[in-house]
Amino acid sequence: MHLYQPPLEDYNFILHHFLKIEKEDIEGYKDLSPEFTRPIFEEAGKLASEVISPSNKDGDEQGCKLENGIVRTPESFKLAFDKLRAGGWLSLDIEEEFGGQNLPLILSTVTNEMFTSANMSLTMYSGLSRGAYSAIFLHGSEDQKQMYLPKLANCEWTGTMNLTEPHCGTDLGLIRTKAILTENGSYEVSGQKIFISSGDHDLSENIIHLVLAKTPDAPEGVKGISLFVVPKFLVNDDGSLGERNKLSVGKIEKKMGIKGNATCVMNYDGATGYLVGEENKGLKAMFTMMNEARLGVGMQGLAQAEIAYQAALNYAKDRIQGRAIQGKANPDQSADPIIVHPDVRRNLMEQKSFIEGARGFIAWAAVLLDKAKRDGDKNAEGIASLLIPVIKGYVTDKGFEYTINAQQVFGGHGYIEEWGMSQYARDCRIAMIYEGTNGIQALDLVGRKLAMDGGKHMREYLKLVQNFIKEEHSKDFENDFIAPLKKSIEHLQAALLFFMENGLKNPLSAVSGATDFLHLVGLVSLGFIWSKKAQSAEEQLKNPLSDKNFLEAKILTGSYFMNRQLPETRLRLDKILTGEKQVMSLAANQF
Amino acid sequence: MHLYQPPLEDYNFILHHFLKIEKEDIEGYKDLSPEFTRPIFEEAGKLASEVISPSNKDGDEQGCKLENGIVRTPESFKLAFDKLRAGGWLSLDIEEEFGGQNLPLILSTVTNEMFTSANMSLTMYSGLSRGAYSAIFLHGSEDQKQMYLPKLANCEWTGTMNLTEPHCGTDLGLIRTKAILTENGSYEVSGQKIFISSGDHDLSENIIHLVLAKTPDAPEGVKGISLFVVPKFLVNDDGSLGERNKLSVGKIEKKMGIKGNATCVMNYDGATGYLVGEENKGLKAMFTMMNEARLGVGMQGLAQAEIAYQAALNYAKDRIQGRAIQGKANPDQSADPIIVHPDVRRNLMEQKSFIEGARGFIAWAAVLLDKAKRDGDKNAEGIASLLIPVIKGYVTDKGFEYTINAQQVFGGHGYIEEWGMSQYARDCRIAMIYEGTNGIQALDLVGRKLAMDGGKHMREYLKLVQNFIKEEHSKDFENDFIAPLKKSIEHLQAALLFFMENGLKNPLSAVSGATDFLHLVGLVSLGFIWSKKAQSAEEQLKNPLSDKNFLEAKILTGSYFMNRQLPETRLRLDKILTGEKQVMSLAANQF
Repeated sequence: MHLYQPPLEDYNFILHHFLKIEKEDIEGYKDLSPEFTRPIFEEAGKLASEVISPSNKDGDEQGCKLENGIVRTPESFKLAFDKLRAGGWLSLDIEEEFGGQNLPLILSTVTNEMFTSANMSLTMYSGLSRGAYSAIFLHGSEDQKQMYLPKLANCEWTGTMNLTEPHCGTDLGLIRTKAILTENGSYEVSGQKIFISSGDHDLSENIIHLVLAKTPDAPEGVKGISLFVVPKFLVNDDGSLGERNKLSVGKIEKKMGIKGNATCVMNYDGATGYLVGEENKGLKAMFTMMNEARLGVGMQGLAQAEIAYQAALNYAKDRIQGRAIQGKANPDQSADPIIVHPDVRRNLMEQKSFIEGARGFIAWAAVLLDKAKRDGDKNAEGIASLLIPVIKGYVTDKGFEYTINAQQVFGGHGYIEEWGMSQYARDCRIAMIYEGTNGIQALDLVGRKLAMDGGKHMREYLKLVQNFIKEEHSKDFENDFIAPLKKSIEHLQAALLFFMENGLKNPLSAVSGATDFLHLVGLVSLGFIWSKKAQSAEEQLKNPLSDKNFLEAKILTGSYFMNRQLPETRLRLDKILTGEKQVMSLAANQF
Repeated sequence: MHLYQPPLEDYNFILHHFLKIEKEDIEGYKDLSPEFTRPIFEEAGKLASEVISPSNKDGDEQGCKLENGIVRTPESFKLAFDKLRAGGWLSLDIEEEFGGQNLPLILSTVTNEMFTSANMSLTMYSGLSRGAYSAIFLHGSEDQKQMYLPKLANCEWTGTMNLTEPHCGTDLGLIRTKAILTENGSYEVSGQKIFISSGDHDLSENIIHLVLAKTPDAPEGVKGISLFVVPKFLVNDDGSLGERNKLSVGKIEKKMGIKGNATCVMNYDGATGYLVGEENKGLKAMFTMMNEARLGVGMQGLAQAEIAYQAALNYAKDRIQGRAIQGKANPDQSADPIIVHPDVRRNLMEQKSFIEGARGFIAWAAVLLDKAKRDGDKNAEGIASLLIPVIKGYVTDKGFEYTINAQQVFGGHGYIEEWGMSQYARDCRIAMIYEGTNGIQALDLVGRKLAMDGGKHMREYLKLVQNFIKEEHSKDFENDFIAPLKKSIEHLQAALLFFMENGLKNPLSAVSGATDFLHLVGLVSLGFIWSKKAQSAEEQLKNPLSDKNFLEAKILTGSYFMNRQLPETRLRLDKILTGEKQVMSLAANQF
């Protein structure tokens, strides 16, 4: 089994050369020098590599067990989670008033990627808690904040999000869970919720469930949904734990992967709950935390692709089989390492060029979200909103694809559980589904985000890329980077034109190409980011003390993306231009 | 859990309208009228649906257990396997002299697709036996044939293929298993083999292992490999079972899927084996059965995509969630079935247009193999050899991709094991790996098959497509089918030209694009097949008694493929044209 190795040099390059974060005029950023970030990342990387990564297989093999109504996680999970808590790693970007360190999102995004590569199931326990924290922070009363946030901040208590019911997931207007007001102002919550990640476990002393439910006279559909906080153990006024609330785990789902995280059926039987925010505004409250949550899921796609790539690369250097076409690489041995074979190379280059590009994409989005949150920058917020569904959809689609490709490097050894490649693939698969399926992300992008604020955010995004294209570039750079980038942006513009000309009179024609459009924007974004990264590497190479080997690899890897991956934009455009004609041609009974 | 439903109408359309098999002048084909094939397919379909499909989940949940040295399969497997045997389904295309029915491969290809959709793990027990049968049939002595073939024919005994060892899979020149000649002419075989599918089980009374090994003085590398038959129980001269041979199961591998098939570590400790064919010609003996074996694995990719598609389609029609953009489809209910949503449609259309195209592709190849085997047609054999790696690689790559897409239709329900979608995906995954990884298929195509017989087979293939293009077509057909087909064939020709101009002086430049080329040929093939199918549907539509709904669906599904899938040929060409520059740019230490 491969143990995670943190890609510290790539983080350094992305944050301090590509994004130059310490030069960004964002509150809290001026301290973020390489000298400040490196020791943090080294520590986090050490923890990820030495403590968290070894627990990963236990989650898959032992899974979670429901015993007498309580979910038990593997022993190594408790150890690892305690260390995460003890190191303050779970509250890096939490407000100081509730016990956090108030560091920017860009930092916790990097550390979370490491922890997620090392053990995705484990980090979901804290990830969901972060969601519960945000929901109460943004919409809870002052009393609720004082009661829950200091405990949620560093996962002394953990949290869950309860949306889905057996008959509805995407269409939350259909939910049936009821909340009835009692005389003391609390509610009695009754109903069944399914697919509740981290629904129960033994990693914390209390679990704070955020539950969507309907009051008896609520309007129909999504306008009648309210948000409630329903703790596993009721909390006394002094903060101590009171009696067990009337909720229970119906079962733990058997799933394809992330077996170390308990996905529970939760039964609420008149459980005591407290309204968060206004009645009937529950869905809106959930939506406000969506950007960070979806960024987090996109990051899971990256994180699994990264650990799978690391393992595949090691294997490709170790495993000897066959001879290099260009002559024996390993004349003293009976065969050459398989990394000499072009098709193995191709496979590794696809993974590498995607992973490093996606890492830059997510880091860029984190900076935009910091700018939005810390400086109230509406422009940054708009571009981030536009890009978040792309990060969620594109990075998890491709992250899964490349995790599968990494598994392929192992041949038959990738298919048996021993080497861990199967687990990475099975774990990664969920990221395409939850937090809104990738089809829903595409719909959000085309149906909502494109038109938001009169289409301003896409225009701003295009301007960023076009301004970069217009800068002066070396001839090689023009050929390898700017030329393919230009083409891809033409494809994007052609798709936008098609949507404008057709989408208004016939929304079907635009929506039929939604997934292709999401991928098109994903490709252009990685093309833009790789161009900027390569430019930054070129600059650095002028410094004779720079790491030539590393920087040249960046440029070559970027060039691979620009010339072998980015041309897919044209295919995506071709598909979009067919409108709804092909997609909607069959009657339902003709399938 | 979805129970398999045989796509009988599609088989009828493919065999009797697209391929018009009863009009082919191939030995044994003239009887293959629709009246002859339909009852066979109906019976096979009934068995697949009612007996085999219900056993599928048992394989995944109960798996195989090693108890006191013997592998136990689920009870339902024994029942289903007995019925397959009793119905003569496992010997359809076996020679009459050994107890089979000598029917053409095209028939067993269809029935095997059904059985494989219903339970892939189960059909592997008979599939591997078929391989052992062929090895002995083609290379064994008369005595060996008489001893083993009547029993292998209908799986009274089953067979295995033992190639891989812990340190070598693809590079068989490295194998270490030894075979030492004894005084009585048999050999003592010693060594360890891994990844042996159907290595042991309780479905038959004896297991006939075909084992690659080296004699003490054998030349180095692949030229020193011999093939041995090593039965689990030695066979007495009267055909009765004798003593247990010196071989044992080391363990059953824990794997991602196909858990109902025992993948074994096999230990041979001086086991008695008998040379099959000539010494040192073992690899060649294995290669002669490769076409059918690889066709069979390609078919597994199709079969899993089919069952996953069936389940996804049912779910999309059943599950109500959200409202259609074009107005409520289901005004009496709280939501519409998700099949109304364009992105769900797109997903289903991609699956459907691939599956029906791939089914035509595999059926065509089966006819070519029949023509080669039954009529000794060298031209057919050549084209089949060219296309087999494409079928294995392209159909399993895409079959897995679409199985994943089918899983996506279920949202969260696709990720839990309850609905069976996870199993289809996990089972399907192996088809990209075994019987030569898909990277090896690409290398076989570009490195061997293209140049075979002076490049004749690719020229013949191109001629077939070009002659079809030149025929007279209706204007609509020109637009929807011929125009995209023409473009795709231009891309294929451009790729071939690039290989010719660069590949000879620098093989790396061709091999770097091998996987892209394999997909390019796969796409063109499906484009060709869809065009022919649509043409055949157009013809049939002139008959007023024809099934208009069904035939129009064929044309529309074909049109989807031609206009939304086939344009990928250009992307594949773009990648091929980058040669080795991008693929081989990094030094190994720059990864």
